[in-house]
Amino acid sequence: MPLTAPTSADTDLRFERVVDLPPEAIWAAWTTPELVNQWFTPAPWRTSDTTIDLRPGGGFHTVMHGPEGERHAQAGCYLVVEPGRTLVWTSALLPGFQPAPPTPEGFAITATIRLTPEGQGTRYEATASHADAASRARHEAMGFEAGWGAALDQLVALMKAQARPHG
Amino acid sequence: MPLTAPTSADTDLRFERVVDLPPEAIWAAWTTPELVNQWFTPAPWRTSDTTIDLRPGGGFHTVMHGPEGERHAQAGCYLVVEPGRTLVWTSALLPGFQPAPPTPEGFAITATIRLTPEGQGTRYEATASHADAASRARHEAMGFEAGWGAALDQLVALMKAQARPHG
Repeated sequence: MPLTAPTSADTDLRFERVVDLPPEAIWAAWTTPELVNQWFTPAPWRTSDTTIDLRPGGGFHTVMHGPEGERHAQAGCYLVVEPGRTLVWTSALLPGFQPAPPTPEGFAITATIRLTPEGQGTRYEATASHADAASRARHEAMGFEAGWGAALDQLVALMKAQARPHG
Repeated sequence: MPLTAPTSADTDLRFERVVDLPPEAIWAAWTTPELVNQWFTPAPWRTSDTTIDLRPGGGFHTVMHGPEGERHAQAGCYLVVEPGRTLVWTSALLPGFQPAPPTPEGFAITATIRLTPEGQGTRYEATASHADAASRARHEAMGFEAGWGAALDQLVALMKAQARPHG
């Protein structure tokens, strides 16, 4: 039973790249709190206090710290968890599917991370779905593509270092 | 793997009743468009144009018509579909899990309908989860309990009529 993925060009932002890591490594980076803390926010921002309850209706929580002492807590709810393949979460809901209050950014997103094996690596497709074109435009102006790209660079560097034999 | 149900007394409205219908009949009434059209809004309001895509991420849509010509379209997204047992949907998301724009009521809900066999009938538990206590209070003042009760009365009358032999 296929899930309906958000596909509207008016309300979605999409990011796609082929990455030199197996899907399992990318999945682990997205779903292991100690790993998320190490790659999730492009430097000089950093992430701490990640918690993950990895099931539909389960919640996640992170704290993002800016270089000037900014501190943004972020919460959301997982919607689809297909290990190694598809992760969908939304900031429109809190754990237990509770509706979320308005966010500081002023808009909610539903994020879909889709992983497909390709050669020795993985096609990494990230989609951020918004309620309307204005929210999409605002997110784009905030630097969606550069931000998600820099975070993915950090994810790849981290997981390659993890895979390297020690000693 | 149990799903986390919203349980906060501060943000939830709950409605519970034992109903003289089997769980399957209540499930059918909630998930069949032609049936939803006949019970969903307490008279003198009526419902039309119900569409249902019954799977997590699938959408539903109804139009509610008031006695003075009011016309409210309502849309949402299913989150949990456990036939005969548990139905969870939210107005915070649209089909495909897309974040929903602000609603005319000014708040989103996540509704959980839980059906448990009890004797010859069913324990019917409905929960409406809100982002905050203010939204909960607003929904309560709009007549949540009387409204959901009257709708359930209509559901029961409809399904008893359906079960009655014809001729």
